[in-house]
Amino acid sequence: MPQVKFDITITLDGYVAGPNQSVENPLGEGADGIHEWALKTRAFAEIHGRQGGETGANDDVLRESFENVGAHLMGRNMFGGGPGPWGDDAWRGWWGDEPPFRTPVFVLTHHEREPLAMDGGTTFHFVTDGIESALEQATEAAGGRDVHISGGARTAQQYLAAGLIDEMELHVVPQLLGGGERLLDNLDGAGIRLEQVRAIEAPDVTHLKYRVLK
Amino acid sequence: MPQVKFDITITLDGYVAGPNQSVENPLGEGADGIHEWALKTRAFAEIHGRQGGETGANDDVLRESFENVGAHLMGRNMFGGGPGPWGDDAWRGWWGDEPPFRTPVFVLTHHEREPLAMDGGTTFHFVTDGIESALEQATEAAGGRDVHISGGARTAQQYLAAGLIDEMELHVVPQLLGGGERLLDNLDGAGIRLEQVRAIEAPDVTHLKYRVLK
Repeated sequence: MPQVKFDITITLDGYVAGPNQSVENPLGEGADGIHEWALKTRAFAEIHGRQGGETGANDDVLRESFENVGAHLMGRNMFGGGPGPWGDDAWRGWWGDEPPFRTPVFVLTHHEREPLAMDGGTTFHFVTDGIESALEQATEAAGGRDVHISGGARTAQQYLAAGLIDEMELHVVPQLLGGGERLLDNLDGAGIRLEQVRAIEAPDVTHLKYRVLK
Repeated sequence: MPQVKFDITITLDGYVAGPNQSVENPLGEGADGIHEWALKTRAFAEIHGRQGGETGANDDVLRESFENVGAHLMGRNMFGGGPGPWGDDAWRGWWGDEPPFRTPVFVLTHHEREPLAMDGGTTFHFVTDGIESALEQATEAAGGRDVHISGGARTAQQYLAAGLIDEMELHVVPQLLGGGERLLDNLDGAGIRLEQVRAIEAPDVTHLKYRVLK
């Protein structure tokens, strides 16, 4: 069965971004280092077409998160948000000419737009009729492989609250932000029940994977 | 070097208790099951003078948390709070005649009271002049062994914020409460820096241990 899954880095106090996020500072204050564990890996280098990077538990976990993914889905800020460039169809997002997704990518937005084909196998599709429609389209495009919700946190949260996630992995880093955007908020009443799948201790991060019980 | 340490069970969304805590329902709503992993262990049975219980990773972790502890320290609600009985010096807390601590226990309170000696080696000492004084007294009483901050969450939080904790272990259970009391809140500006010590995957819980960097 194909899965709908996401994975995201969170601080020990539950934040995915610090306070005062902005277009210039999308991670907010104090959160610069939270993705360091991933940036250092060989898997990260590879999907960005570069050499080098570290192997080991963090590399394995990041690599696994891409495996068997047939389509990605994301919020508009993740594509390349900000009020300025978005209305301009010449704007091609902030992932460069060859984005690392290499699958169809479905972008949640209110702005209708033709699909945008990039180098390396990524095509952005813009979906204006809601999260369920986006997931249906992504599932069909994935052709039996998994759909990966790539973020941001609010998008993952919406899918969790709607009961549409099968599996989530939280990369918990030993930092406290004390404010900002929390992943596991705004879920009141969603009645989400989880099952612990595994925990992997790795350098400077612990990877916690859960199944959402249906 | 003796350590000042605490360990506490938290839900994946960071809560140590659910909403609407009361004397009758000290864990709040929805949080009944969060300590299940500990209640099932042989270590828990033993410190309560009972037989049975499960061995394994959870038992090992719980057992380790008691090891080398020379004194405990707790908030007044943990001793046996509630406005009713507290003013009455005949009230002996809610730990029974033979509390499981078996060391001196320092209770933070505003209510002066003579020490209360219980069966089995526990003596409650009531400290009215603040958290630093309580820790000094506990450290002296511990005689070179560790001081264990036994809770509640607010007490652990106060010591964290004051930079007085050396090590903390969070027992993360795969539940979401969506509201209640969060451990890692109200720490703004404390500038706490952590180092991941270890992560242990165990049945229905993951044990995450951190050092507080000084």
